[in-house]
Amino acid sequence: MGKYVFGVDIGGTTVKLGLLDGEGQILDKWEIPTVIDNNGEAIFPDIIRSLQGKMQEKGIRQEDLLGIGVGAPGSVDKDGTLVGGAVNIGWKPFNIPETIQAYIKVPVKAQNDANVAAYGEMWKGGGKGYSNMVAVTLGTGVGGGIIINGELVVGSTGAGGEIGHMHLEDNETEACGCGKKGCLEEYASATGIVRLARRRLEKDDAPSILRGGRLSAKSVFDAVKAGDKVAIEIAEQFGEYLGKGLAIVASVVNPEVFVIGGGVSKAGEILFSFVEPAFQKYAFKQCRGAKFALARLGNDAGICGAAWMVLRS
Amino acid sequence: MGKYVFGVDIGGTTVKLGLLDGEGQILDKWEIPTVIDNNGEAIFPDIIRSLQGKMQEKGIRQEDLLGIGVGAPGSVDKDGTLVGGAVNIGWKPFNIPETIQAYIKVPVKAQNDANVAAYGEMWKGGGKGYSNMVAVTLGTGVGGGIIINGELVVGSTGAGGEIGHMHLEDNETEACGCGKKGCLEEYASATGIVRLARRRLEKDDAPSILRGGRLSAKSVFDAVKAGDKVAIEIAEQFGEYLGKGLAIVASVVNPEVFVIGGGVSKAGEILFSFVEPAFQKYAFKQCRGAKFALARLGNDAGICGAAWMVLRS
Repeated sequence: MGKYVFGVDIGGTTVKLGLLDGEGQILDKWEIPTVIDNNGEAIFPDIIRSLQGKMQEKGIRQEDLLGIGVGAPGSVDKDGTLVGGAVNIGWKPFNIPETIQAYIKVPVKAQNDANVAAYGEMWKGGGKGYSNMVAVTLGTGVGGGIIINGELVVGSTGAGGEIGHMHLEDNETEACGCGKKGCLEEYASATGIVRLARRRLEKDDAPSILRGGRLSAKSVFDAVKAGDKVAIEIAEQFGEYLGKGLAIVASVVNPEVFVIGGGVSKAGEILFSFVEPAFQKYAFKQCRGAKFALARLGNDAGICGAAWMVLRS
Repeated sequence: MGKYVFGVDIGGTTVKLGLLDGEGQILDKWEIPTVIDNNGEAIFPDIIRSLQGKMQEKGIRQEDLLGIGVGAPGSVDKDGTLVGGAVNIGWKPFNIPETIQAYIKVPVKAQNDANVAAYGEMWKGGGKGYSNMVAVTLGTGVGGGIIINGELVVGSTGAGGEIGHMHLEDNETEACGCGKKGCLEEYASATGIVRLARRRLEKDDAPSILRGGRLSAKSVFDAVKAGDKVAIEIAEQFGEYLGKGLAIVASVVNPEVFVIGGGVSKAGEILFSFVEPAFQKYAFKQCRGAKFALARLGNDAGICGAAWMVLRS
């Protein structure tokens, strides 16, 4: 009977790795760079070498391992196949468990990174105590993890919870990374907030502390906290899009709670003062009781959720 | 061991009732009027009297009954409580199983009518063979039933699948029955199609066989089949809204199939020629493989799905 589990969270810049015990306590965590050269061919060899090194360092034998959980930046089906590849990394479709098990013969569970982070937050984060939640990750993109009765909605082709690519704006001229125009991600991601800010600042000469500086989601919300009127308008636009999008999500799956994470969520509870009014405006009456909570595990959500997929199976 | 099950489908005009055997074959079906006077206080007494009468007629004792399944026109939670009441009928919230069990002491399962119809279609209709489907009912309103891995998404307050009330249009001036403006239901229901038709006909004097006659979803699609250009424009608008809405639903739950039922679906496969192009335009790449199928059980979907809830439990 094994005693340890690895959680692996593959991001576009770094791979986060964690060693947890059978009760889910994090015993160790570390990062390695994500080397995206040559379509990311070194990433899995690097991960396996890093896990094997950690096993050697801690004196962990293969039979001590309950398994390895993996979160990957793309749509993953029930068998752990990255069905559409991972555009940001250059990966083509492949099966993640088989790739790892060629080197380390233990159970491997793989899921989309946003979905895995959702499990982490449900297990021990902002969604603790709920079993019907929608995790929303506002980072470079917008990811989602839909959990119904404690189970992730993986979807028939691994694209369950891809709420960043719901169509929200008919009048958009710039294309989203997915090729469509008017996706939620174009307004509610860190990049999207910068887009909204740029457009607002170009519209007129209204004074703002945002002018001249480097625009980012952080600079916008810092300006909001300082009472900057233009920044508040930008945040209202962001809140209008995200609140509307989440109201639509609520009409489909009617969750108890939305757990908001990712870089943008570092702005804190102030986000909700922009998102919740729009949510209330657009949500169907019976869906309006949904709570909003901040993700609590930060960078650990991925490794925790990845480990949890192994521990609960 | 019981041998029979009743399926009850409560609509705004009639209550459909069915007697099925333990294998799910329909042995008998009939209807009674839905008497909505005095906030629909007579409806359940009428249903119970009708069921008791049928039991007497067929010589069915209470111990021969496996149970009674009920589809009701409102949001129903896991305990069978009609949480928001039923606006069309005038009902306030109440618990459906308790109400029936006061008279007939057998297991009772209750669910939202659109959800129940979805089970029916998955069991033996247009969704047969699929376990990830979205049933869309285009009737007086627009209802939805989301099925993930064979299970209905009831939602935390019984409003799972209320896709008719997803916000789709910012520029709407008329209010939906739910009080909001710009809901999918305002364009894709039978009433919504009449609204689109009325607006199109008022816009200019373009010749159309629709002019002068009584507008209905049927008259619009009959005109489409006759090659009427104005009717085709109206159908394109309908398809744009419904295709967009279903593309958004796909980004949340990524189903294998959409099963389209309700009165509007009597137009047949021609509906898909208007809905699928819009769906393909707005859907996230990995969700575009979703199939479209017509509901096959017609008026029997509700009684079949209601009975199925009892039979599978």
